[in-house]
Amino acid sequence: MTSSRLPNHISQQFDNELEDIRSKVLAMGGLIEQHLAKVLAYFSKGEVEGVEYVSVSDYLVNALEVEIDNDCTDILARRQPAAGDLRLVLAVSKTITDLERMGDEAEKIARLILHEDDILVTGSYYHGAAALGKHVASMVRSALDSFARMDSEAAFKVAFEDRAIDTETAAIMRQLMTYMMEDPRTISPCLDTILAVRALERIGDHANNIAENVIYLVEGKNVRHVSLEQVQAEIGSSESSGN
Amino acid sequence: MTSSRLPNHISQQFDNELEDIRSKVLAMGGLIEQHLAKVLAYFSKGEVEGVEYVSVSDYLVNALEVEIDNDCTDILARRQPAAGDLRLVLAVSKTITDLERMGDEAEKIARLILHEDDILVTGSYYHGAAALGKHVASMVRSALDSFARMDSEAAFKVAFEDRAIDTETAAIMRQLMTYMMEDPRTISPCLDTILAVRALERIGDHANNIAENVIYLVEGKNVRHVSLEQVQAEIGSSESSGN
Repeated sequence: MTSSRLPNHISQQFDNELEDIRSKVLAMGGLIEQHLAKVLAYFSKGEVEGVEYVSVSDYLVNALEVEIDNDCTDILARRQPAAGDLRLVLAVSKTITDLERMGDEAEKIARLILHEDDILVTGSYYHGAAALGKHVASMVRSALDSFARMDSEAAFKVAFEDRAIDTETAAIMRQLMTYMMEDPRTISPCLDTILAVRALERIGDHANNIAENVIYLVEGKNVRHVSLEQVQAEIGSSESSGN
Repeated sequence: MTSSRLPNHISQQFDNELEDIRSKVLAMGGLIEQHLAKVLAYFSKGEVEGVEYVSVSDYLVNALEVEIDNDCTDILARRQPAAGDLRLVLAVSKTITDLERMGDEAEKIARLILHEDDILVTGSYYHGAAALGKHVASMVRSALDSFARMDSEAAFKVAFEDRAIDTETAAIMRQLMTYMMEDPRTISPCLDTILAVRALERIGDHANNIAENVIYLVEGKNVRHVSLEQVQAEIGSSESSGN
């Protein structure tokens, strides 16, 4: 199902190269999902082993980014792809930048957790971060799925979800601020949590960027700085007029 | 001096196109510097007019990014550049992503300032943010200069400066936390300032990314995930063995 959506080339070898890059991007995405799950296990279950692992393992993500980036440059230089293939390679090149930065944010969260003085902090304190994290992880999964299936419909859903994340973040921030005002001894751990929540929000932003790249790739439309409703309406009307 | 560093092509038209993209990137960089200066004028002089302007003007940055991005795709498709030219176009494509995100961060700072309840906040409170802002602005300027002159030496300096920024940010965070603990009424404005300081730090990170792109472009070395000392040593030794 998946490979049928990729363009077919006279050169089987070129097809293989593109498919190879695509799998590597998905492998990189899988690694990010693992790292994210490990830091989130702290918020929901208090597990700290995974957090320690993530705090020192971002180099794995970075190594994959450099490898895929070199593959892209290599394909551009040797194959000089046109139209859809060119868009694919450029979208991959942008996607891996976003994945790499998601990895940085996961690492930051891990370090914030390890830095934390959690003696004063109770379990209920993390409810907000755990719920947001679950939401962001599902958004990352959807963004990667939309990339794997080159499914612009799914990508649109991710972009809409990003707005819900922003509202959720604002609510958590208000709650944590209340804790800080009630008990100044919680200021330091609350601040670490606020920075972790912000990092989760940015992971959501990067998932959104990936989804926008998929829309650009499939629909040939740059949706980064226009309203989603506008783009959906345009695509809808051009499709119905084409029928 | 500048244009002499760009590759010469048989096609004068192609040279013009590359020069055109390069000027647009510098124009975009200039716009970011303006926006940054306007938000920083709040921290140093309490000026709020510029902040209001920046909070609604990020679309100008976004428009330039889309335009330059389209130019890059167009050049890749039509000219199918090789070697140095290909690296230039790819470096531009990455550089404008960083510039666009710097613009986002400047907009966020503007919104945080406008959101602030500053009745309880005295001037001395912003000293740290003002000093950090000055430092980050000079780093942005250096990164853009290194891009304009394709000067990898200057780019290395930017990358080293990024470390100083991280230390400075940590110190400001500690200071603001002390304020919050002493007077819980300052929690809300302190938190806004902390988020603004973090946004400044990220602008520094993006300046660093731009500098790394210049190093990649000039030296052909990807320095993103290795130690700077290592790369400098390698370049130094290969240059002296070449003499």
